[in-house]
Amino acid sequence: VEKATQQHIKELNRNLVLKILFERSTTSRAEIARISNLTRTTVSDIIAGLIEEGLVSEIGTGSSMGGKSPILLRLEPDSRHMISLNLGQNEFMGAVVNLRGEIREMTTRPVEGRDGEKALKTVCAVIDELIRKTERPLVGISLGTPGLVNTREGIVINSVNMDWRNFPLGPRLRERFSMPVFVLNDCQAAAMGEYKYQGDEQHTPNMIVVMAGHGIGAGIIINGEIFQGDGGYAGEIGHIVTVRENGLLCRCGNRGCLETVASARAVIQSAESQAMVTPESVLNKQVGRITLEVLEKAFDAGDDLARQIIIHAGHALGEAVASLAGGLNIDKVILTGMMTRFGQNYLEAVQEKAGKNILPRLRQEISVELGHHRDNEIILGASAYLASDYSLLLKPVGARNNLWEKEIWQGNSL
Amino acid sequence: VEKATQQHIKELNRNLVLKILFERSTTSRAEIARISNLTRTTVSDIIAGLIEEGLVSEIGTGSSMGGKSPILLRLEPDSRHMISLNLGQNEFMGAVVNLRGEIREMTTRPVEGRDGEKALKTVCAVIDELIRKTERPLVGISLGTPGLVNTREGIVINSVNMDWRNFPLGPRLRERFSMPVFVLNDCQAAAMGEYKYQGDEQHTPNMIVVMAGHGIGAGIIINGEIFQGDGGYAGEIGHIVTVRENGLLCRCGNRGCLETVASARAVIQSAESQAMVTPESVLNKQVGRITLEVLEKAFDAGDDLARQIIIHAGHALGEAVASLAGGLNIDKVILTGMMTRFGQNYLEAVQEKAGKNILPRLRQEISVELGHHRDNEIILGASAYLASDYSLLLKPVGARNNLWEKEIWQGNSL
Repeated sequence: VEKATQQHIKELNRNLVLKILFERSTTSRAEIARISNLTRTTVSDIIAGLIEEGLVSEIGTGSSMGGKSPILLRLEPDSRHMISLNLGQNEFMGAVVNLRGEIREMTTRPVEGRDGEKALKTVCAVIDELIRKTERPLVGISLGTPGLVNTREGIVINSVNMDWRNFPLGPRLRERFSMPVFVLNDCQAAAMGEYKYQGDEQHTPNMIVVMAGHGIGAGIIINGEIFQGDGGYAGEIGHIVTVRENGLLCRCGNRGCLETVASARAVIQSAESQAMVTPESVLNKQVGRITLEVLEKAFDAGDDLARQIIIHAGHALGEAVASLAGGLNIDKVILTGMMTRFGQNYLEAVQEKAGKNILPRLRQEISVELGHHRDNEIILGASAYLASDYSLLLKPVGARNNLWEKEIWQGNSL
Repeated sequence: VEKATQQHIKELNRNLVLKILFERSTTSRAEIARISNLTRTTVSDIIAGLIEEGLVSEIGTGSSMGGKSPILLRLEPDSRHMISLNLGQNEFMGAVVNLRGEIREMTTRPVEGRDGEKALKTVCAVIDELIRKTERPLVGISLGTPGLVNTREGIVINSVNMDWRNFPLGPRLRERFSMPVFVLNDCQAAAMGEYKYQGDEQHTPNMIVVMAGHGIGAGIIINGEIFQGDGGYAGEIGHIVTVRENGLLCRCGNRGCLETVASARAVIQSAESQAMVTPESVLNKQVGRITLEVLEKAFDAGDDLARQIIIHAGHALGEAVASLAGGLNIDKVILTGMMTRFGQNYLEAVQEKAGKNILPRLRQEISVELGHHRDNEIILGASAYLASDYSLLLKPVGARNNLWEKEIWQGNSL
């Protein structure tokens, strides 16, 4: 139940103005008034407030349309910074991101073992390092992690790569850093990243981003927002779509899950076992030490076995895409994750099945493309999720300052 | 881009009050003010307007909580009527529905052949008859039809049972009856019906309603609204989920679609061909004239063949449910359509696979139940869709009056 008060209206209007500023590289008060239908006075008041906050600046005059030349306005990309992390399988990657999704600083730390508290320490070390690297006011911290996440409460229900079970990652970090913290599933974060930073193309309201790596998952964007489902697990397609009856046993306990055929782990396993009995394959000599890199080299060199395994994985993924994108009637599908290193031939295998296992009427509409941000889409998506809460932009946390205060207060040595 | 003006706020506040009135059988100005956070004066002004419109009435005083006894208010169920139609396979069913989803009048007409213009005439005849049967102000007309529908423009892209291709059903009816007309896909309408009229249970924001009849489709409710997808085809799962490789040829041109295993048409076909070679089945003597009724009788009598066919259909549907509900992480699934006549045993077959082909973590959460409104959910859903546009409630069309005017104007004999 939403209340419509004067305060609420002021916020709605300000958010509308911010939205217009975010969507354009430059604009003017007159243009904002025209697009928003707000009065010139209201727009001027809001802009004055945003300039005072440092979020907007005047950058000269534009070309006149007959009357007075308009003063050009733009959102100040570096007026706020965000800390975003991608808690990957083997390493944690962190970045300082500005309001335009530009990465200003970056750092990575390797992760060894599955110790949950140790992993939390590494997360904190990454954040500390990044906070030290920026002097801008901070909006907050956002993280993308594999596994099941309760985003509302910031709890990692079940992490794939470390011992986090019902782990209050968000609350713990909020307490430690005294700023807003958001925890997202990595696929959902990647979807947000690909959605928000599509380049100049026309934005459709809906999008599916399928991430095929060690595991397989998807992020579903509905009406411009991440759809998380009842428990936050929307897009967990890796263990749902049973592509083959009597298929391989999956780590989840079922048989023939999509992950047993189409994940990076699956193709390596398949290569290991088949290469042994395929002397004509270049992989035969590498049995025991086949990695994704080795497989890629063989694939690029035209090795039949490598090709067959990868195309098979692509077909299986294509069937899952057909099922999800077809069932939701979402036309735009983006493919990302480690498996995309197999490039155009792999993409075409996915496209082939995604286009075939679908109602004929819908075939011509669906498009499957490779992602635009390869290694950064999780970080970009997590920060975009943070920036989309405009109220946080107006209540930033002093960066360096804040740390000093905390240091004194908590007695931490940072 | 949304404008927040005084007028807009007035509308938001009024809609908020209407929402509270719709959700409660009785309430009071004080309760509305408490729930909405609106001032008593604002609430009183809005209620005065709604009473004047006839939408709300005072129905006595409630029990006092210490102070003055509050005047009880309620939404007047029959202050507005809606015309809703279910354009079924063999007959068109139409009803006059009130604001509480109570059916006040009902009529059906058989449909023969596939002639599109003839079908339109039948639709108009049903509407004419229903308009004549009510004297209440009308909100508009809403229809649920099988096939692909562009709801925004009211165009039937592709009807399953008649020759409507890119047929402007909405615009044609709007012109003929001079009132708002909404055209929905039948599964999407059914989903809305089951969602809006769940009884007293806690409302979850999301729900999937799977309709298994001649064809198979689903309606997906996200955040309380029908999710239609990019083209309006969301939920068209009948031809997407390939349950069996090298399966039967489907009318869509693919092989092994869900409809070739789990639809009413499929189980009848399967019974016909298998009964021929199964002398021990009671169906053997009925070859050539097996209907769903015949199959139901055999199933209820414990005939092995009938049982095997129906359970097989239930399993296939369960796999599709697992894929859709699991991929979206939507826990509440409602089963409806002709196939539900096979009752509890059929439901359990669906539940079995829906619970198995899913990530273990999510199994305990998912619930598959039979629908509550059997034959009426499409009509109820279509009318609920109409009533959810509160602005239409305040701009109703005179019923009988309007007809008379049209009669003179168009020279129609009604």
